[in-house]
Amino acid sequence: MSKELVFGHQSPDTDAIVAAKAYSYLQNKLGYDTEAVALGEPNEETQFVLNYFDEPTPRVITKASDEVDSVMLVDHNEHQQSVSDIEDVTVTHVVDHHRIANFSTSSPLFYRAEPVGCTSTILMKMFDEYKIEIPAQLAGLMLSAIISDTLLLKSPTTTDDDKAAVIALAEIADVDYKTYGLEELKAGTNLSSKSEAELIEQDAKSFEMGGKNIRIDQINTVDLDEVFARQDKLEAAMAADAKEKGYDLFLVLVTNILDSDSRLLVWGEPTDVVEKAFNTTLTNNTASLPGVVSRKKQVVPPLQDQFK
Amino acid sequence: MSKELVFGHQSPDTDAIVAAKAYSYLQNKLGYDTEAVALGEPNEETQFVLNYFDEPTPRVITKASDEVDSVMLVDHNEHQQSVSDIEDVTVTHVVDHHRIANFSTSSPLFYRAEPVGCTSTILMKMFDEYKIEIPAQLAGLMLSAIISDTLLLKSPTTTDDDKAAVIALAEIADVDYKTYGLEELKAGTNLSSKSEAELIEQDAKSFEMGGKNIRIDQINTVDLDEVFARQDKLEAAMAADAKEKGYDLFLVLVTNILDSDSRLLVWGEPTDVVEKAFNTTLTNNTASLPGVVSRKKQVVPPLQDQFK
Repeated sequence: MSKELVFGHQSPDTDAIVAAKAYSYLQNKLGYDTEAVALGEPNEETQFVLNYFDEPTPRVITKASDEVDSVMLVDHNEHQQSVSDIEDVTVTHVVDHHRIANFSTSSPLFYRAEPVGCTSTILMKMFDEYKIEIPAQLAGLMLSAIISDTLLLKSPTTTDDDKAAVIALAEIADVDYKTYGLEELKAGTNLSSKSEAELIEQDAKSFEMGGKNIRIDQINTVDLDEVFARQDKLEAAMAADAKEKGYDLFLVLVTNILDSDSRLLVWGEPTDVVEKAFNTTLTNNTASLPGVVSRKKQVVPPLQDQFK
Repeated sequence: MSKELVFGHQSPDTDAIVAAKAYSYLQNKLGYDTEAVALGEPNEETQFVLNYFDEPTPRVITKASDEVDSVMLVDHNEHQQSVSDIEDVTVTHVVDHHRIANFSTSSPLFYRAEPVGCTSTILMKMFDEYKIEIPAQLAGLMLSAIISDTLLLKSPTTTDDDKAAVIALAEIADVDYKTYGLEELKAGTNLSSKSEAELIEQDAKSFEMGGKNIRIDQINTVDLDEVFARQDKLEAAMAADAKEKGYDLFLVLVTNILDSDSRLLVWGEPTDVVEKAFNTTLTNNTASLPGVVSRKKQVVPPLQDQFK
């Protein structure tokens, strides 16, 4: 069996990096020959996690077809979020917790998606099903991914499966998940050292809706006002990035991880679709979105519905 | 939780009907409110199976949105193979063993696909994972679906998982699967009573490749010559159906289930793509395809590759 690469989406978050490592570990135990790689450098939160559990940073790739014929995707499926030459390789496996879109194959494949808070939660179940033991360091990484994706089990994407996985993984990793989790989330909110161009890119994903190219970034913070003090420069960075990459509409969801609220910053058109999707009115290109913390569950579906 | 319908593809084969019944049974045990239905009448093989295990024929529907908001798909995912108003309902669950194409959702969902010979094999694993017991009659149906899809474990789509499932299900159903299996397969090859229009429709699926509408039917027989004695009338039926439904290319794969060979009958264009896909030359619109028995594994992928 020839070697396959395993990776998460572009602009990787903790789950994208960790799920690749975890799935690669599982598949190698099952007899595959895989290597976990990443489609970008780890963000600060992920770097904190890798340091904490003393795990190496995965190699970063931008192309896959010069190395392998086949790949396994985790934490994404949409082609525009994947490796640049995804059309030139065969996708044999996917483990994901997002909607399915802009994805197709010529042959049958292994696809496992569940509407849970984190890919690592599904992987935890798969380790159980295959009766493969999870090493303590890997359990720590998977725990961190679930904490990251569910904002310490507070996001509306959180399911009973995520809660059960957090408790089981915390025990294997031997950490107090509440104390550790807050420390982890705060490590990702050190925004002062980042440029506006970095802030609008670090957790950004692309979507196609109604024929439009839409970019949605999320910034986690403990102080919304601190981020919006930089609004002018953020808008300039969004405009420059949109012009270069051809985005029609650019949304930045700034989320306060402590009180689970967000404020939206919007560049581009059509803004009336955005206003309808969130039943709000934009003021100075912004809108408060109380209780909104999940791009996947609270931003993409209402926007997609309005674009239909 | 509101009621959901569970169904397999149009022109249902045994797996499409049985997997819907099995998945509906499993989901109801897990707390969902579902009903298994079908997108067409059972074929003769499936009717034999339902009679043998004394199970009712599912209700046939052509629309779902007038009854429910949400549906679960088994044994297919491509929209053109599904219920006519699939765009008007939410797909919450899919269990399948085919390629993924022409499928997308707005929200995360449960999707379970494995490259095995039969959907019922995946369902057997899921019953195990959820620790739900399979009743003897249902085990008989699931066994029959695997026998049908894998031509009694002889198709190249057959995996170790299918073999293990057949043995386990035969024990629960208390039947000798080899004797029963041959009887079941032969029940589906009584072609003399069928019109040419029925023959080209009974196991047909639609595909989009390179912008063309392609129809691929499969006819199982114990005597290829008996089928090809009706070639002129089959071609006339293919042409009439293609004109009515707008197919560009119509392939009928006639498969001898006893010696695992097929002969292909082709109507429409482009025939050069067909010849290249199977590395053959058409003579009088036909070509021998030795060893080819699987549409999914041996017909769709090479054709798709040539259309790229």
